[in-house]
Amino acid sequence: MHEDRSADLDGKHPDLIVRQAAPPNAGPPLSLLAHAHTTPTDLFFVRSHADTPTYDPHTYRLSIGGLVRRPLSLSLAELHENFPRSHIRATLQCAGNRRTELLAYGDIPGELAWGADAIGTAVWGGVSLRAVLDAAQPLEGAQHAAFLSFDQATKEGRTFPFGGSVPLAKALAGEVLLADEMNGAPLLPIHGAPLRVIVPGYIGARSVKWLAAVALQAGPSENYFQTQAYRLFPADLKDAPADAARGMMLGELSLTSVICTPGADARLPAGCVRVAGYAMAGGGRTVERVELSADGGASWRQAELGQAEPWAWRLWHATLELAPGPAQLAVRAWDSAANVQPEDYRTVWNCKGYMNNAWHRIDVIVEAQR
Amino acid sequence: MHEDRSADLDGKHPDLIVRQAAPPNAGPPLSLLAHAHTTPTDLFFVRSHADTPTYDPHTYRLSIGGLVRRPLSLSLAELHENFPRSHIRATLQCAGNRRTELLAYGDIPGELAWGADAIGTAVWGGVSLRAVLDAAQPLEGAQHAAFLSFDQATKEGRTFPFGGSVPLAKALAGEVLLADEMNGAPLLPIHGAPLRVIVPGYIGARSVKWLAAVALQAGPSENYFQTQAYRLFPADLKDAPADAARGMMLGELSLTSVICTPGADARLPAGCVRVAGYAMAGGGRTVERVELSADGGASWRQAELGQAEPWAWRLWHATLELAPGPAQLAVRAWDSAANVQPEDYRTVWNCKGYMNNAWHRIDVIVEAQR
Repeated sequence: MHEDRSADLDGKHPDLIVRQAAPPNAGPPLSLLAHAHTTPTDLFFVRSHADTPTYDPHTYRLSIGGLVRRPLSLSLAELHENFPRSHIRATLQCAGNRRTELLAYGDIPGELAWGADAIGTAVWGGVSLRAVLDAAQPLEGAQHAAFLSFDQATKEGRTFPFGGSVPLAKALAGEVLLADEMNGAPLLPIHGAPLRVIVPGYIGARSVKWLAAVALQAGPSENYFQTQAYRLFPADLKDAPADAARGMMLGELSLTSVICTPGADARLPAGCVRVAGYAMAGGGRTVERVELSADGGASWRQAELGQAEPWAWRLWHATLELAPGPAQLAVRAWDSAANVQPEDYRTVWNCKGYMNNAWHRIDVIVEAQR
Repeated sequence: MHEDRSADLDGKHPDLIVRQAAPPNAGPPLSLLAHAHTTPTDLFFVRSHADTPTYDPHTYRLSIGGLVRRPLSLSLAELHENFPRSHIRATLQCAGNRRTELLAYGDIPGELAWGADAIGTAVWGGVSLRAVLDAAQPLEGAQHAAFLSFDQATKEGRTFPFGGSVPLAKALAGEVLLADEMNGAPLLPIHGAPLRVIVPGYIGARSVKWLAAVALQAGPSENYFQTQAYRLFPADLKDAPADAARGMMLGELSLTSVICTPGADARLPAGCVRVAGYAMAGGGRTVERVELSADGGASWRQAELGQAEPWAWRLWHATLELAPGPAQLAVRAWDSAANVQPEDYRTVWNCKGYMNNAWHRIDVIVEAQR
């Protein structure tokens, strides 16, 4: 148990690594992450830009508005009674996952120092956003669906609700849910109760927690977390520019893969070592190949791949034969469009530390057998 | 005009570079390729696995069969009369585009030595495949749409029609066309008349020419060009293995970018040089960033980007200030999911030379000004 845990994390796994006490931000040790295709809820990472807000389930309403013919204000009971229920297994990953690996190549001030733990996979249950938007009847000109929380985030001296948006075509794809259930249990407050929009294949920031409103509009959300934050700046910008438009607005997740076990700096017996981890393709693509190197990328061995699903990560494992001495293990993945991850951290470094998907590398020591 | 042009290429641009005389395979000089967002038809690359077949437009029928409730046999007149017409600008790219760059890292016998010219963008006109499949009423269990040509390809001593397939979800996406029109004119025989299926965002091989049949089925096409060819093998396999399943079945295009001008080994005046080319994201994604380096990747400059469309390439240009001496120019692109191309040819080399999308590099000589 970490001393600086906030009460918000009550019920979460005691070994979570707390990245920030308040608002609560924490992720699981990698050694615990890659054991199960579906992450147990107590190990699922927490990424909050605000303290967990309270609400009254009897008076809560979800507003559906903007460019719709028939604006809706739905109680939880109305949502349950009027729309079919569906379930989807989907991986959520924070755009800041793997940020710490970039710190060797330049400072990234003001952002949380996530390891490779800001990712998890759950079975989400709820109502398809498409069904609700169909009922509201989108008007011509609607191009984006903007989500607004009822939390209170504080950024640059202002306090306002967290928000973000996705293109309307994505919002109308069947896989986007208004979820009130996670891994077969009611969604916990820290994970977004009473309702969290789940946007599979997108950066976690678009899966807005504590959802108050969905508004269809011509352009993307004008919320700070869409217009200013979650922008990918070119590597030559050492500080975030005043003009956020110089950065790409993030949406679909990039291709990544991570070695979860052994851990960094592990001391391993010489001989055959089992290596395991996760890979995620993003945007509905699947991971089709994962390769491991124990010689700095000179040669590669194919990993065995677990279950493939468009919206979930793909777990993998491999057995490597390691000779005594220091070794660097590296992993890289290919997606179903034959893209491979970039090799060099310097290619992907950016001043906010988003979307690091360079080949994941860990140093280990292989000990001579007695 | 090349001496070894086949009569099939009559009407195509005289400067096309002929990669094979028969069946005809040819592409445009890069200096002519990147001038227009839509490629003039006479400059559009030709990739044929068989000689251009003849047909009688009065007796031609397109068969829609397999796992459908209502098999169809449609004349060209019936297609035109019974289904709405639509148009789409889409880039086609051969999976073998940029193969020659890989030859420095290992032999690739038996495949055409394409430069970066096996790509082109046209406005295709025809009937949406979705509309035709809706009329045929897909049955439960249909997961793939298999396309079969009425050509006669010869491979490994056997002669058979070219074929391939795409997942049914893609076939039912609105952007897949049964095209009989290219850039406002009737589709030419060499480009697939009377009908070519156009599968935007996928490798060109799936846009089957001289289309005879569409069959819905549970699995991918069993045609040689789906099961054996167009497989991406790992780099450690120096020859194609007997077991083709060791390679990834190709589908969506990977992210790529190419410098079209100046050309390789150009002699340039010192000072400001205009560099231009194309980039393609694949799979409906857009190219969101293109960067140029003139110092081997140590520093990068953002290119100006042309029009963005999900199914077409994105042209770009940049002005680089070059000092006298030899220089290597490199380009790399980012897609809308924050993926970047891999750096090293050794990462993407494979024994069939498919899907080379390493940073494109050209050597130039910058001459001192007098």
